[in-house]
Amino acid sequence: MLDPFDDAHFMRKALMEAEAAYEKGEIPIGAVVVVADRIIARAHNLTELLNDVTAHAEMQAITAAANYLGGKYLKECTLYVTIEPCQMCAGALYWSQIGRIVYGARDHQRGCIEMGTKLHPKTTMEGGVMEEECSAILKRFFIEKRNLN
Amino acid sequence: MLDPFDDAHFMRKALMEAEAAYEKGEIPIGAVVVVADRIIARAHNLTELLNDVTAHAEMQAITAAANYLGGKYLKECTLYVTIEPCQMCAGALYWSQIGRIVYGARDHQRGCIEMGTKLHPKTTMEGGVMEEECSAILKRFFIEKRNLN
Repeated sequence: MLDPFDDAHFMRKALMEAEAAYEKGEIPIGAVVVVADRIIARAHNLTELLNDVTAHAEMQAITAAANYLGGKYLKECTLYVTIEPCQMCAGALYWSQIGRIVYGARDHQRGCIEMGTKLHPKTTMEGGVMEEECSAILKRFFIEKRNLN
Repeated sequence: MLDPFDDAHFMRKALMEAEAAYEKGEIPIGAVVVVADRIIARAHNLTELLNDVTAHAEMQAITAAANYLGGKYLKECTLYVTIEPCQMCAGALYWSQIGRIVYGARDHQRGCIEMGTKLHPKTTMEGGVMEEECSAILKRFFIEKRNLN
């Protein structure tokens, strides 16, 4: 039987967040936090609008999820994010003790894997879910930005 | 001539923030952001009160400083923080392209040096300013906490 709540399902929701960022002229990265097949937080990158380097999708999603749960640890949660988290976001996820991280496309330059950021020992991470779509929207953004300048 | 605005001067201000955290039952870590000998942001750890692992002193200070400056980069700024930044905060400081980081005491367990977090190539970092005082308030907090449990 097909699982309606598979990783691709939730990554599609994270991609919808990335599209919302795109519409605002933000680097299009989106994230959702899921617990027991329910989305408890949605967020997209807002660094330009908020004038704040800390306003990555994952950071806002962590804060929103903790707010929803009423506790700051996200042990039972999965974060879906369209692009591999950076050092800052992986560091925040470390403190949250999140159960699982699923990303779409790798960030070979500034991602936590390349940077060697430590995850919490209880956290598992996997990637490549809807990789092409997650990567494509980012490429489209940067190509359009380059053509505007 | 003595410089009234030396590193110890600003670290004392960061320590006052750590004391404010202590009074609230928060892990006592404080930070200030300085540009041209002026403090433009002050913050202390609020992870318990805000129920949010991202509410470290440095994160709030970065957001507040960018808000004050009206731009998200802190290239001309120095961050003074009582304890060496963690992966998350060092990652945020990377994105901010901050000019200089000065910390009081090392965090040999979860600090960015031990964790191998990358700083921005334009950022310099030094430590050991008022190290004993910065370390002492943290030790006092954990001893008292242990005795309460």
